[in-house]
Amino acid sequence: MGRLVEVTDVILRDAHQSLMATRMALEDMVPACEYLDKAGYWSLECWGGATYDACIRFLNEDPWERLRTFKKLLPNTRTQMLLRGQNLLGYRHYEDTVVSRFVEKAAENGMDVFRVFDALNDVRNLETALRAVKRTGKHAQGTICYTISPVHTVEKFVTMAQKLVEMGVDSICIKDMAALLKPQPAYDLVKGIKEKCGKDVIVHVHVHSTTGVTLVSLMKAIEAGADIVDTSVSSLSLGPGHNPTESLVEMLEGTGYETRLNLEMIYKARDHFAQIRPRYREFLTDYTGVETEIFASQIPGGMLSNMESQLKQQGQGDRMKEVLEEVPRVRKAAGYPPLVTPSSQIVGTQAVFNVMMGPYKVMTGEFSDLMLGYYGKTDDEKDPQVVAKAKEFAKKEEITCRPADLLKPEWEKLREETLKLEGNNGTDEDVLTYAMFPQVAPKFFKERHKGPVNVGKDPSEPKVTAAVDPGHPGYLAAPIDYEVIINGKKTKVTVAPA
Amino acid sequence: MGRLVEVTDVILRDAHQSLMATRMALEDMVPACEYLDKAGYWSLECWGGATYDACIRFLNEDPWERLRTFKKLLPNTRTQMLLRGQNLLGYRHYEDTVVSRFVEKAAENGMDVFRVFDALNDVRNLETALRAVKRTGKHAQGTICYTISPVHTVEKFVTMAQKLVEMGVDSICIKDMAALLKPQPAYDLVKGIKEKCGKDVIVHVHVHSTTGVTLVSLMKAIEAGADIVDTSVSSLSLGPGHNPTESLVEMLEGTGYETRLNLEMIYKARDHFAQIRPRYREFLTDYTGVETEIFASQIPGGMLSNMESQLKQQGQGDRMKEVLEEVPRVRKAAGYPPLVTPSSQIVGTQAVFNVMMGPYKVMTGEFSDLMLGYYGKTDDEKDPQVVAKAKEFAKKEEITCRPADLLKPEWEKLREETLKLEGNNGTDEDVLTYAMFPQVAPKFFKERHKGPVNVGKDPSEPKVTAAVDPGHPGYLAAPIDYEVIINGKKTKVTVAPA
Repeated sequence: MGRLVEVTDVILRDAHQSLMATRMALEDMVPACEYLDKAGYWSLECWGGATYDACIRFLNEDPWERLRTFKKLLPNTRTQMLLRGQNLLGYRHYEDTVVSRFVEKAAENGMDVFRVFDALNDVRNLETALRAVKRTGKHAQGTICYTISPVHTVEKFVTMAQKLVEMGVDSICIKDMAALLKPQPAYDLVKGIKEKCGKDVIVHVHVHSTTGVTLVSLMKAIEAGADIVDTSVSSLSLGPGHNPTESLVEMLEGTGYETRLNLEMIYKARDHFAQIRPRYREFLTDYTGVETEIFASQIPGGMLSNMESQLKQQGQGDRMKEVLEEVPRVRKAAGYPPLVTPSSQIVGTQAVFNVMMGPYKVMTGEFSDLMLGYYGKTDDEKDPQVVAKAKEFAKKEEITCRPADLLKPEWEKLREETLKLEGNNGTDEDVLTYAMFPQVAPKFFKERHKGPVNVGKDPSEPKVTAAVDPGHPGYLAAPIDYEVIINGKKTKVTVAPA
Repeated sequence: MGRLVEVTDVILRDAHQSLMATRMALEDMVPACEYLDKAGYWSLECWGGATYDACIRFLNEDPWERLRTFKKLLPNTRTQMLLRGQNLLGYRHYEDTVVSRFVEKAAENGMDVFRVFDALNDVRNLETALRAVKRTGKHAQGTICYTISPVHTVEKFVTMAQKLVEMGVDSICIKDMAALLKPQPAYDLVKGIKEKCGKDVIVHVHVHSTTGVTLVSLMKAIEAGADIVDTSVSSLSLGPGHNPTESLVEMLEGTGYETRLNLEMIYKARDHFAQIRPRYREFLTDYTGVETEIFASQIPGGMLSNMESQLKQQGQGDRMKEVLEEVPRVRKAAGYPPLVTPSSQIVGTQAVFNVMMGPYKVMTGEFSDLMLGYYGKTDDEKDPQVVAKAKEFAKKEEITCRPADLLKPEWEKLREETLKLEGNNGTDEDVLTYAMFPQVAPKFFKERHKGPVNVGKDPSEPKVTAAVDPGHPGYLAAPIDYEVIINGKKTKVTVAPA
C-alpha cells in the first residue's frame, strides 16, 4: 500500500466555469451525482465562484436550492465551495456580519468545505470568513493564490501559509488559477509548507491545465507531500480547465502513492458529461490546446484580449507591444498583485491608459483604489509617486487598515431592501443573494417561480427557410439564414445572392 | 547549468500522421523549416511511417524530393526517420538487398537518424537495416516497442536493450505509440537500461499523449537519465498526438534539467502550423481529450473501432463484450505481441472470428502466419494447440528462422518491373517506391509530372445549390445536399422536406 492521495473533483463547479461559461444546469449534473458520490473523492467542489451568479443571471435557478440538492445527492462525499473572502461571491467588500451570515447559511444548507481566498493574498481579507467557518464546525481552508513575480518567492508563500496556520485553518490550498505552477516550484512550495508548518498540515493543490505542465506539477507536489489534489472528470477537462481525474489515477500506479478512487464510477460520470457537453457547445471554450506564453508575459489570456479590444476601440490596435511592456511596470508600481480577477483587469486597463495618454496622466477609479489600499495590502511596496497621484485623482487618503474595517453594519439595511422586492421569500438566503447581486436579484426573485431555464440546446435536425426568387426558381432573391446543426453544434450560416 | 536534455520534434512526421491522417503537404511545412532549424533540436523527425505512402497515394509528391527538400532547409539539425525494420515502409518483409538499398538511398538523399523498429520486438528483423545504417555512417537507433502484458517486465525490455547495444546501435529508443508508458515504468525502464547497458548509452523516449499521463512519464524518464525526448510543436499536439514541446521546455525550469531550445523560434513555427491546421479540418482527428480505458483493456482505440465495425457487418454488434474478453486470450495464445499495426488488427480480427464461430474454428491467413513465425518471434511462447491449428489452416510449417532468410533475391526483378512502368525515372529511388507500394506506384509515376496536390482546403464561403419545387416557390421539392464550410471545416448537410 502506498501513501494515500486524496482527490477533489471540480466537475460540478470550476470545470464548467472554466470550459463552458458556468452555464451547466443543475438537472444536467443530477444524474451523475450517484456515480460521483460513490467514486471515493475527498470532496466535490460544487458551489461558489461564478456558479451563484450564473444561477440567478442565466439559469433562473436558486443557488441555495442547488446547494441543498447536492447535499442530498452526495451523502458520502464532502461538498466544497470557493469563497472570495471578504468579497463573498460578489464584487465588493462586505461588512463582517454579512460575511458571517453567508458562511452560516452556506453551512446550514449543506456546505462542508470552504476554500477561502483573497485576490491580493491579504490574509486580513480572509479572517472573518475563516473564523465564521470555524464557528460552524465545518472545514476551513485557507488559500494561497499562486503567482509569479520578482517578489513572489517560495519563502513568501510559506510565510503566508504560516499565517494561515496561525489563524487556525484546517488545511491550506495552493491555488494556481493561471496554470503557472511549474513542477519544481510545486515541489518546493509543498515541501516548504510541510517543513515550516508541520507535516500534519493538510496541503491541497489546485491547478488549471492551460499551460500543459501542471499534471507534472501535481506529481511533484505529491512527491513533496501534498495530501489532496484537484482534478476534473476527463470529459470536461484540459485547456483552461483542469487535469483529467482518470489520468491522475493512472499516473500514480507503482509510484508509492495512490488514490482511493473507483474508476468504474468515474467512467460513468465521464460518459454522462460527454453526452451533456455538446448541448452547451455555444458556451464551450474554443481552444483546448496549451498556451505557454503566459510564462514569459505573465499576462493571462483573458487580460490580453481585454487590453486588445480596449486599444482597438481607441483606434490604437498597433500599440499592443507597448502595452505589453507597460504591464510589468504597472504591476510593479502596484506592489505586484497576482494577476487574477479583478486585479488583472485593473492593471491591464491602467497599462492601456498609460500607453495612450502617458504614464498615470489618467487613472481609473479602480486603479486608484488598488494603489490606496482599498482592496487590501499587496505583497510588495507600492511606488510612492504613483500613490501620490492616486490620492490626487481619487481625492481619497491611503488606508492601511483592513478595508472592511471602514464599513458600517449593513445587514439590516440589506434585509429591509430585500423584503421590498417582489418575489422575495423572506429568508436570509434571499438577503444574501440581493447583497451580492443587487442588479440581478430583483429580476430573479420576480421570475423564480417559473423554475429553472436550461440554456443547453438539444442537438436537433437542421431547419431551413427557403427564400427564393419566385420569378427565377433556383435563384436566391434575398439572403437566407440557415441554422445548421452539425454534430450537435448549432451555427448560423447566411447565404446571400452573389 | 542543469543537465542538457535534447529534444526531437515530430511536427514534420508523426504529429500530422497522428492528428491529420498524414495529409500535410510539403509546401505547408516549408515556411516553418527556418524556425525549426534555428530552434536547437537534436533532430527533426520528418520522414517514414505513413508519410511516404501518403505522398504517393494522396499528394502526388515524390517522397524522395520531400526528403531532399528537408535536408536543404534544415542545415543545422539532424533529419530523422522511422523505419519498420525488415518491412521498410511497406507491408511485407523485404529481402536484405532491398533493405540495404533503401537505407543507402535514404542516407544519400539526406537522412541522418534512422529509428528502426519491429512490431514484434524481434531484433532479428532490425539487424539488416541497422547494419546498413552503420555502413553509411549515419545514426542507427534501435527501438523497443513498449507494451503492457504479463510477460512484458522491465527486465525483458532491458534485455532487449542489451541485445540492441550488442548489435552496435548508436542509441536506443523506447517507443510508446499507445501512450501506455506510465511515469514509474518510464523511470524504471530508463534506469534499468542505463544500469545494464552503461550510462553512456543514449536513451531516446518517444511517447504519444493519448492517455494524458505521458508528459509526467517524460519527466520521470529524464530524472532516470533519458538523453533525448520526443515532443511536438503545440499547435499540432495532444490527443492521439504528442506532448507539446513548449510545455516540456517550461516544465523543466528549475529542475536541474534543461533543453537548449529557443522558444521564440518554436512560437513562430507554432503560429505557422496553427494557421495551416484549419485547412486540413476534414482530416483532423475528432477527439483531442484523453482516453485512459486502454490501461484496463489494453486495446488501442483504432483496434476497438475495427472490431466493432466487423461485428456490426455481421449483425452481431451486441457481442462486443465477449470480443473484449476474447482479445487477451488470443493475445496470450499468440505469445503476447505488442498491439500495434499490424498485430493489433490480426489479433482483433481473430478475436471477432472466435466469438462468432467458436475458438479457432476459422483462422485468418495473417493470424496463421503470426502463429507460425512468419512475422518473427513473439516475446512469450505460443499456445501449441493453436499453432497446430494454424498449420492445418495455412498448410504451412512453423518457422523459427528470421522470416527474411526465406526470401530470394528480388532487387533485379523489382528493378525490371519498375523500368516498365510509364513515368518511372530510372532511379533506384523509384524501384524502392515500387517495391514498397506496388499498387500505388504505377499511377504515381504516371501522374508525377503534374506536380504535388495540396489536399488542404482554403476556408471559403459557403456554396448552396437551391432545389425548390417550381410550382411552390419556397418549398423544398427534394432533399438538398449542402456542402457547408464553417471556419474552414467542410461538412455535408442534407436538408430534406419535412
